[in-house]
Amino acid sequence: MSHERADAFVPGHVTGFFSAHHHDDPLRAGSRGAGLTLSDGVRVTVEPADETTVTLNGQQAEMTAVNHVLTALDVSCTVTATTDLPISAGFGVSGATALGAALGANAVFDCHRSENALVGLAHAGEVTAGTGLGDVVAQSRGGVPVRLEPGAPGYGLLDGIPALARVEYCTFGSLSTADIITGDTEQLTNAGERALTYLMEEPTLTRFMIASRKFAREADLLTPEVAETIDAVRADGGQAAMAMLGQTVFALGTGLTDAGYDASACRIHPPGATLAE
Amino acid sequence: MSHERADAFVPGHVTGFFSAHHHDDPLRAGSRGAGLTLSDGVRVTVEPADETTVTLNGQQAEMTAVNHVLTALDVSCTVTATTDLPISAGFGVSGATALGAALGANAVFDCHRSENALVGLAHAGEVTAGTGLGDVVAQSRGGVPVRLEPGAPGYGLLDGIPALARVEYCTFGSLSTADIITGDTEQLTNAGERALTYLMEEPTLTRFMIASRKFAREADLLTPEVAETIDAVRADGGQAAMAMLGQTVFALGTGLTDAGYDASACRIHPPGATLAE
Repeated sequence: MSHERADAFVPGHVTGFFSAHHHDDPLRAGSRGAGLTLSDGVRVTVEPADETTVTLNGQQAEMTAVNHVLTALDVSCTVTATTDLPISAGFGVSGATALGAALGANAVFDCHRSENALVGLAHAGEVTAGTGLGDVVAQSRGGVPVRLEPGAPGYGLLDGIPALARVEYCTFGSLSTADIITGDTEQLTNAGERALTYLMEEPTLTRFMIASRKFAREADLLTPEVAETIDAVRADGGQAAMAMLGQTVFALGTGLTDAGYDASACRIHPPGATLAE
Repeated sequence: MSHERADAFVPGHVTGFFSAHHHDDPLRAGSRGAGLTLSDGVRVTVEPADETTVTLNGQQAEMTAVNHVLTALDVSCTVTATTDLPISAGFGVSGATALGAALGANAVFDCHRSENALVGLAHAGEVTAGTGLGDVVAQSRGGVPVRLEPGAPGYGLLDGIPALARVEYCTFGSLSTADIITGDTEQLTNAGERALTYLMEEPTLTRFMIASRKFAREADLLTPEVAETIDAVRADGGQAAMAMLGQTVFALGTGLTDAGYDASACRIHPPGATLAE
């Protein structure tokens, strides 16, 4: 049995810092770290079709993680994803599309999977594709997710910072997630572990922003434009950091506009990924 | 440092079936089972005060779990809870108030606790007071929470059924949660374990409703008015079950109104408990 269509909404996610944890089992691989989920996200529509096609904002898209999910569910369908978020700039668009496709396909085809199982499929798809390590589990939770232990539900462990805030962002270009997370991650991972310890001593948004800035510096990921923008926001009394992994700066409140940048604005999004009406 | 006030919203929660798991450590005690979180919930406002007072819909209320939370945070404040939900009728109002007080007090007094820590405090308060075993962790997640393993975050394990639906309910009176969950729970727990196994073979709303009805019968908790109402909804082609623990019937869609009952209506509420603007 199948239904005509199903829609899902998955929040965007900017990671402030992370450590990479590789494992042969993609459900056990992942990252520790923390980020913000955003009210700007990805809307995903799933409709049955003879052949699977995936479009992102109207363009045919190669999204390996989505195909992984649909193959695992043994379905073929049209996946239509739309988003206002910048692509390949550290907002977790690929993870969001994979998770939205999982939720939507499960509903359309009556696959009878639990939420944990669907999150696990999308997480494994991202890990296998090399496009992400922690976005999917963070996006499934919403709010300000802290990944205490890496991996899919049942393996990983999530916590959260209880906070609401306006979030601004601007993007200067993309970085390749795959190049960084499949390369030598030792320096990055040491910096990420230190950042997590510092945050959990006092799990607040302020500490999250400080930890994220320190991480970007220590992991040597700052690009000149990103560094300059973060400095400009701080000089104006604001809090900004770099989104992992993109040439993206995010700030709390009106930090970027106060510093004169033409920024997009959204909010921390308490709900996680969900089917939509 | 303290702020003027903070607000939180915690969804209501009707448990369809459960098994009780006692433990000396209240963080490890709890229940397995499943339920629906509801867009009808409890709004909790916390303001600093020299002495703690708790009101529920304008009436001074004795809520042991709330006092447990505030004592653990070492704060005194005015807790103002308002809800449209029936009280002591199986909607998790005491758990919601404890969790809302935890989120609100943490924000007002800059207590710097993580979400897991706050959920743990409210859960332990409910368990210690004997007023609940699973509402708090379910309310922290939102949606259709399945408690696979009992206990607070870090000990328990949650899953969810990915589903949206309109939910109707009507209430014929209260049942004492404390009398039932502190008494002999063997028959109840066996029935609850069977219901969970049945549900997780195919985690859908339909199975949830069937499992819940069977549980109420096997655990011998049905009251005549509840049994009659559930039968009336089913005779009309609808899905209804009893809320644990109250003389409350909940139904999917328009099940109760179709059967001629004067029911309240709300929806499954995907976000869990959260600070509110």
